Amino acid sequence: MLGCFLLGQAAFAGLALAQEDPLASWNEGPAKSAILEFVAETTDPDSQGYVAPDERIAVFDNDGTLWSEKPLYFQVLFAIERLQEMAGDHPERTETQPFKAALKRDWEAVAASGGKGLMKLLAATQTGMSDRTFTAEVQDWLDTARHPRFDRPFTELVFQPMLDVLEYLRANGFRTWIVSGGGIDFMRAWTEEAYGVPPEQVIGTQVDLDYVSDTKAPAFERKSGTFFFTDGANKPIGIQRHVGRRPVIAFGNSDGDLEMLEWTTTGEGPRLGVLIHHTDAEREWAYDRESDIGRLDKGLAEGPDRGWIIVDMADDWAQVYPWQSAP
Amino acid sequence: MLGCFLLGQAAFAGLALAQEDPLASWNEGPAKSAILEFVAETTDPDSQGYVAPDERIAVFDNDGTLWSEKPLYFQVLFAIERLQEMAGDHPERTETQPFKAALKRDWEAVAASGGKGLMKLLAATQTGMSDRTFTAEVQDWLDTARHPRFDRPFTELVFQPMLDVLEYLRANGFRTWIVSGGGIDFMRAWTEEAYGVPPEQVIGTQVDLDYVSDTKAPAFERKSGTFFFTDGANKPIGIQRHVGRRPVIAFGNSDGDLEMLEWTTTGEGPRLGVLIHHTDAEREWAYDRESDIGRLDKGLAEGPDRGWIIVDMADDWAQVYPWQSAP
Ligand SMILES: [Ca+2]
Ligand SMILES: [Ca+2]
Repeated sequence: MLGCFLLGQAAFAGLALAQEDPLASWNEGPAKSAILEFVAETTDPDSQGYVAPDERIAVFDNDGTLWSEKPLYFQVLFAIERLQEMAGDHPERTETQPFKAALKRDWEAVAASGGKGLMKLLAATQTGMSDRTFTAEVQDWLDTARHPRFDRPFTELVFQPMLDVLEYLRANGFRTWIVSGGGIDFMRAWTEEAYGVPPEQVIGTQVDLDYVSDTKAPAFERKSGTFFFTDGANKPIGIQRHVGRRPVIAFGNSDGDLEMLEWTTTGEGPRLGVLIHHTDAEREWAYDRESDIGRLDKGLAEGPDRGWIIVDMADDWAQVYPWQSAP
Repeated sequence: MLGCFLLGQAAFAGLALAQEDPLASWNEGPAKSAILEFVAETTDPDSQGYVAPDERIAVFDNDGTLWSEKPLYFQVLFAIERLQEMAGDHPERTETQPFKAALKRDWEAVAASGGKGLMKLLAATQTGMSDRTFTAEVQDWLDTARHPRFDRPFTELVFQPMLDVLEYLRANGFRTWIVSGGGIDFMRAWTEEAYGVPPEQVIGTQVDLDYVSDTKAPAFERKSGTFFFTDGANKPIGIQRHVGRRPVIAFGNSDGDLEMLEWTTTGEGPRLGVLIHHTDAEREWAYDRESDIGRLDKGLAEGPDRGWIIVDMADDWAQVYPWQSAP
């Protein structure tokens, strides 16, 4: 009942906002219009494109889509800090990559080490402990760490336009899911507070887990093997495993999101696929085809023909971060 | 908004029922009292044991807990029917177990082939096709197949007392999840209609999936490898992966549920662990320590000391199936 009461309030707030502007942080333009029109069409019971509430599933990539990802995915920056703390126990790491670069905080060299290098950093620093210890370490880091460029907590580098989209969709009966290559347990430590996305709606990369049976205090142990890496074709597979329904909306920002957008937008009826193009070096970053982090190449080439909206961050977003001046 | 409206209706229906008896299919006794008292305590904001709505997670095994599982898990009976249809293409199967026994519908021999035998039957009949084809085959089978003892569709062999529990819990703000060794896609084809449990709240055994990319009609292909087998310690691991919260209520019926009950009932605050003991050969079946299917041995020995409720089906259930005379 309380949940329903709160949902009712959110819906009411949504209606109130609609009379103002539910996407106030977006500039007028084709991207904003496409989102508003899609929601109007799918939630109007008299529209041909009406989508029943149960089927209102919206999926979002996280890094580069809901928050920034430069100079490196923030979970990797967390790994690098853990690596500094653990350095005394692992003198051999000063000699081998990607640890050597990470210990020097040489972000470009770490990024260039590719997926395999990043996975090594994560395995070395974020496994071999209980899930409870890990979550506490994530929370400690979020409380104390600051972003190297903006000198703010990482959770302040979320995108205001995407917060507006999440809230607007939920006010219209959509359930908002995260589908990210980032670690599921890393994200769950903060997505509810940052985005309003509860743990059961977070899909992400999973390490092997052991259940440590105990009649008083059982626990989960994080193992170094990767159980499931949620990128590329594994994004729709992760959606199928967790949601079991085909989404009608997908937001991403890199070529790792193309299968998720394809699976979402090739279904019947109205579908919305959106790619965030990072074009704003001043307020955020500008990168695409050549970037080791968040590379967007094929998506830019094929997206428009496939009916996907390409958001030009510099043009389409009136505001980037919540603490930057509102429009 | 519609979801909220319906939720409101369900909650209202729950209140109305509470004045009658939300568990009318249960006989008075310690099991029924324990469930009613647990819900009263955890939903009363003034109680010390109050549980916030977000944390009201209840998990249920399926085979033998929400519906029957004799003479064999119903998904295996489905596999055996598929096997008959495919027999012409696989003459070699008449010579090798467990196929030979399955083709003769020798259920005891199939049950005795153990977990490995059953997995072979499932791999041989329920993989190598798209997920869509598979779901259609499950639905066809449900529409036409009849249970060998009761001559009714399998979905009529659900337990009325458990339907009452599911509805009662949801009316009180609990989210009801299934956590079963059965196949996740097999269950999702019918759990919403049979139990009111939507696809995203079903956790079960998963086969490997391939995503078949296509600009017009992408699909998932079911592969013969087992990605995740949700029994024993993998039940709490599955809960952790999908829900990311610790349940406060768990219902099971076999030793494969012990880790799930342990994980649930060793958390802080009020916890409810329940094992269904099949003691009613007349209305359903009577089996426990010696059964190849749904063996309950350790649970009977240790359950009471661990504070778990053992439901005696013959004594505690006034009604078993929905079509049997109501109490
Ligand atoms: Ca991304
Ligand atoms: Ca069972």
